[in-house]
Amino acid sequence: MKLVSYEHVQNGLTISAQGASEWRLGWLDREWIVDVAFAQEWATLSKGIPLTKLHPATMNEWLEADSKLKEQVIHIAKVIQEEDLSALKVEGEPVALPLEAVKLLPPVPSPPTFRDFYAFEQHVKTARSRRGLGMIPEWYEIPVFYFSNPHTMLGADAEVSRPQNCRALDFELEIACVIGQQGRNFTPQEAMEAIAGFSILNDWSARDIQMKEMKVGLGPAKGKDFATSMGPWLVTLDELEHRRDGEHWNLSMTASVNGRELSKGNANSLTFSFAQMIARASEDCTLYPGDVIGSGTVGTGCILELGPDVHRWLEPGDVVELSIEGLGVLRNSIVE
Amino acid sequence: MKLVSYEHVQNGLTISAQGASEWRLGWLDREWIVDVAFAQEWATLSKGIPLTKLHPATMNEWLEADSKLKEQVIHIAKVIQEEDLSALKVEGEPVALPLEAVKLLPPVPSPPTFRDFYAFEQHVKTARSRRGLGMIPEWYEIPVFYFSNPHTMLGADAEVSRPQNCRALDFELEIACVIGQQGRNFTPQEAMEAIAGFSILNDWSARDIQMKEMKVGLGPAKGKDFATSMGPWLVTLDELEHRRDGEHWNLSMTASVNGRELSKGNANSLTFSFAQMIARASEDCTLYPGDVIGSGTVGTGCILELGPDVHRWLEPGDVVELSIEGLGVLRNSIVE
Repeated sequence: MKLVSYEHVQNGLTISAQGASEWRLGWLDREWIVDVAFAQEWATLSKGIPLTKLHPATMNEWLEADSKLKEQVIHIAKVIQEEDLSALKVEGEPVALPLEAVKLLPPVPSPPTFRDFYAFEQHVKTARSRRGLGMIPEWYEIPVFYFSNPHTMLGADAEVSRPQNCRALDFELEIACVIGQQGRNFTPQEAMEAIAGFSILNDWSARDIQMKEMKVGLGPAKGKDFATSMGPWLVTLDELEHRRDGEHWNLSMTASVNGRELSKGNANSLTFSFAQMIARASEDCTLYPGDVIGSGTVGTGCILELGPDVHRWLEPGDVVELSIEGLGVLRNSIVE
Repeated sequence: MKLVSYEHVQNGLTISAQGASEWRLGWLDREWIVDVAFAQEWATLSKGIPLTKLHPATMNEWLEADSKLKEQVIHIAKVIQEEDLSALKVEGEPVALPLEAVKLLPPVPSPPTFRDFYAFEQHVKTARSRRGLGMIPEWYEIPVFYFSNPHTMLGADAEVSRPQNCRALDFELEIACVIGQQGRNFTPQEAMEAIAGFSILNDWSARDIQMKEMKVGLGPAKGKDFATSMGPWLVTLDELEHRRDGEHWNLSMTASVNGRELSKGNANSLTFSFAQMIARASEDCTLYPGDVIGSGTVGTGCILELGPDVHRWLEPGDVVELSIEGLGVLRNSIVE
């Protein structure tokens, strides 16, 4: 399934359903977003599918739901594929909304934590060589990450504000997974089972701010502490099973700015698998449903790596599109 | 006031008050923890102080409360100072509990974010020189921080588990503030007003894990991703006003291991003030009530800086006590 967190928007205003949180949980079906809670009610009233448990109304509730409840939602999604979505209502409320009537939020609007790894060798090599640095032996031994701000997440089509003192704004083409199970000291096999799904991630970077602060040795912080975009949806693993090879997924990745393709890579070129990254993250530390794990930038996946001959830094008005096979397109525009 | 988040514990079990969250909000009065919500009820029933608004039952509710409500709680705290705390009851529940009957949690049990700065010059100089590195010019230009995990917070007297692959466990003597106002792009003056209070912070560090991962250049992550302790209480600024000099507070800081004093510093030796750190953190980024800002280690405030001639790395059984004038003593013991 392609799961989304969304708001119903009309004339720029968010419309809250009765008694519901403003962030709602839905899935993509054709060009529609089907609301999970309304779809469960519809399935009960119209198809006699008994409501076994309270439906998950938000992504957090989905991630914490048991497998029986998830299977019921997947079953309803199959039943509803046969229906004319424009006609389905529950107590006067539409069960599905056309994509253009919703605002897509990041799949997990406010994750407990956001760890970003550095797991594509080509990116690390090229980014370091541009600063005159060689490769680090330790990089091959352990998957390394930094913590970033989990409360600056943006969804698809959101505008990204260039930080006020930044004149070197960059994108980063990444794939991210969301944790679906609480636990610690995961083995790689347990880590595979803890993945709730994948999404596209753009780790926006203010290179001038980042380069200066990183000289102090604590890694990136304010250089990233303004926006991360993620979306458009969270794709569950069943949809990607045919592209899986062991702990890796064969998914091509591209980035374009203003319609011109700049970057091309593949998720299967990760040196460390997501299973290894999650196992590392969970050493002596509890992971929670909703935690986000980013891969780091794929080779060629940012302007820093491509160099000024290929593209200038981003400016207000630029439109950046990241696409990953099976995961959709994550489009954002830059504003001042 | 000395505000605490606490649980009522008897025979090792947490006792929940009727309908209340397990984390409760209280303050220290003599050797007692006075419960904020019960104290407000007592003040209404016994002293005729009208309950203007729903009382804050947790630290998060306190931080988000308006100043009128906070003033009322401060007023009740003054009234209650005249009372015999052992005798006060509301509907059979004690208004105050002796310190030994409660488990002190970190003042903010699960902060939205935890930023740790690096703002004491002596610590940075010594820690770098031990690795054969000189001082960085950029350090003097901007206060630099890294994000750490906000969900591994421990309170006073909690046991700290040494990570399984760590043989170089260290403490770090720090002072931390908690943000009390949502906002962004704070001026230093606004930043001063956004401070809800101060607490002692121990940024436990697995030096062997940290040194290896930091070679990759993303700063510390798993070296810190297992425990941070904070407490025993959050001290509001009115209690520290007589020690304030501009944007700094004259508060001596010490650390001891197994009763032997190893570290001695003062919060007024910060090169960057908390106002400057908060202003930096809020550039192009919203801060939220409950966000934690750590100072970084005060000079001499960790074993890494003192060196092996002064003390070996920490081992299971060791007891570490951090003390800061006016803020109390934060004691934790190490377990395997």
